[in-house]
Amino acid sequence: SQHREISIVTGTYNGTPVSVVSTGMGAGSVEIVINEIHVLKEYDMARRAWRPRAGDSAVEGKEANTAELFDPASVKIIRVGTCGSPMPTMPVTALAVTRYAIGMDNSCLFYKAPEIAALPDLQEVRRAVREHTGLRDFDIYVAKAHPTITQGIVNACEALNRKLGAATSSTDSQTPQACVVGATATTSGFYAPQGRVVGRFHNHITVPNLVDELGQLRMNVSEGTEVVANIEMETSVVCYLSQLLGYRAGAVCVVVAKRAGEKRETASVEQTKKAVSNAVRVALEAIVAI
Amino acid sequence: SQHREISIVTGTYNGTPVSVVSTGMGAGSVEIVINEIHVLKEYDMARRAWRPRAGDSAVEGKEANTAELFDPASVKIIRVGTCGSPMPTMPVTALAVTRYAIGMDNSCLFYKAPEIAALPDLQEVRRAVREHTGLRDFDIYVAKAHPTITQGIVNACEALNRKLGAATSSTDSQTPQACVVGATATTSGFYAPQGRVVGRFHNHITVPNLVDELGQLRMNVSEGTEVVANIEMETSVVCYLSQLLGYRAGAVCVVVAKRAGEKRETASVEQTKKAVSNAVRVALEAIVAI
Repeated sequence: SQHREISIVTGTYNGTPVSVVSTGMGAGSVEIVINEIHVLKEYDMARRAWRPRAGDSAVEGKEANTAELFDPASVKIIRVGTCGSPMPTMPVTALAVTRYAIGMDNSCLFYKAPEIAALPDLQEVRRAVREHTGLRDFDIYVAKAHPTITQGIVNACEALNRKLGAATSSTDSQTPQACVVGATATTSGFYAPQGRVVGRFHNHITVPNLVDELGQLRMNVSEGTEVVANIEMETSVVCYLSQLLGYRAGAVCVVVAKRAGEKRETASVEQTKKAVSNAVRVALEAIVAI
Repeated sequence: SQHREISIVTGTYNGTPVSVVSTGMGAGSVEIVINEIHVLKEYDMARRAWRPRAGDSAVEGKEANTAELFDPASVKIIRVGTCGSPMPTMPVTALAVTRYAIGMDNSCLFYKAPEIAALPDLQEVRRAVREHTGLRDFDIYVAKAHPTITQGIVNACEALNRKLGAATSSTDSQTPQACVVGATATTSGFYAPQGRVVGRFHNHITVPNLVDELGQLRMNVSEGTEVVANIEMETSVVCYLSQLLGYRAGAVCVVVAKRAGEKRETASVEQTKKAVSNAVRVALEAIVAI
């Protein structure tokens, strides 16, 4: 099924039903897709009502049949995409796996969730970004990928590398798929919003050192010191709206450009194809394993 | 040519070269397209240099041949799209023609332009929006469609109606194409960012009365009292970045949903098709006439 730039295909991967959905570029497009996934998952067309969840006040006592209750944790979403990296040590073609999402786009500011904003590690990430980058005047929001998704992607990548290692014993030599976990900075454009300066915009960049600032950022969170692994345009919305709905979500993005450090680098088309193929495989393995 | 959701076709309309470019949904996607139009128009591939403009300090005296100077006003951009309207009196299928653009997305906050922000009418629009809507905590930006584009679209719509009127003398009766000029509110999503509440998000809408508030907004600007004609997801970026570059830009969007007033209404597929066809025709006529 297709409408505008959104296409959806449903099939099975190793026997588990999986839907693959394209989104357009940018947070606005993803905001649409997550709302529509919400409707597809939780609106009961036949009864013309939202499906009850355990703990719903309207449900208590009324619906004795708990088998009908919807479990939001059953919804698992993994974004697969491409990105740049502000880390001087990040190899191109590595997979950047999201633990935290830094929303520099403002799409989710239209969704208030004080219970998410109050989480200490998210407050720490938000404070660090605003204190140590030129984003101090930006009203950013922060979300967290679900830990089972983040870990599931890492596990799937390690399993893939074990398989590739096994394959090396044959004639076909394979390089291992690198995988780096960290925070993902999501912004509302590709050029100035990612510190790229084009022509006449050169004196008009609000945050000219954004990439270096994000690359140098160190955030003290409950799980240790966190770095910004990548910059792209969609992950914050996937993670924030899913966290709000109780869905389990995360992201795995191929680093196609290393944008800081001594040796800046861009992945070739061939390298990108191979890494994207690995990212898709890792995401599928993770989603059926969790 | 096509890349991701961006397609571009160049041809001629009544002898004038015109390119038609699709953008994806949302401000981020348009931010990319305008930067790339900027490169295509002003970067001289052969000389590997940006084309000089009249008034460039580096150019004065150096480039005697003024024939080579690039005139930014020669670049004319009209966005054609669909939108909702917060005006209780707006008929569906009407064309909303942008005079001002209210950027509730934050893409262009990454492009500072104090000279645009200082314009009195833009300050008036920004102040009115922040004082009279729930957007007071949002850091919005404002831009203006180029007056020749706004007027050109209105003129083309009137010319179309004269033609349709002439056609009525035959058996084929045609209703005139309505056209309303006003401010366009651009936001960074379709659901909560446009006041639409879906399922579990119902207690999480930051600006729940956005549509009514925008519909009731009256702004005193140099050209009289301005209303908000429509809400959509792309126009602010088209207008703001074009204004910054000195390009002439504007937008004409078909109202497919009237979202306020006694009688809310959605245009049918047939109505939408016809109005979009009129919008395309009006935009083409305007762009070749200006």
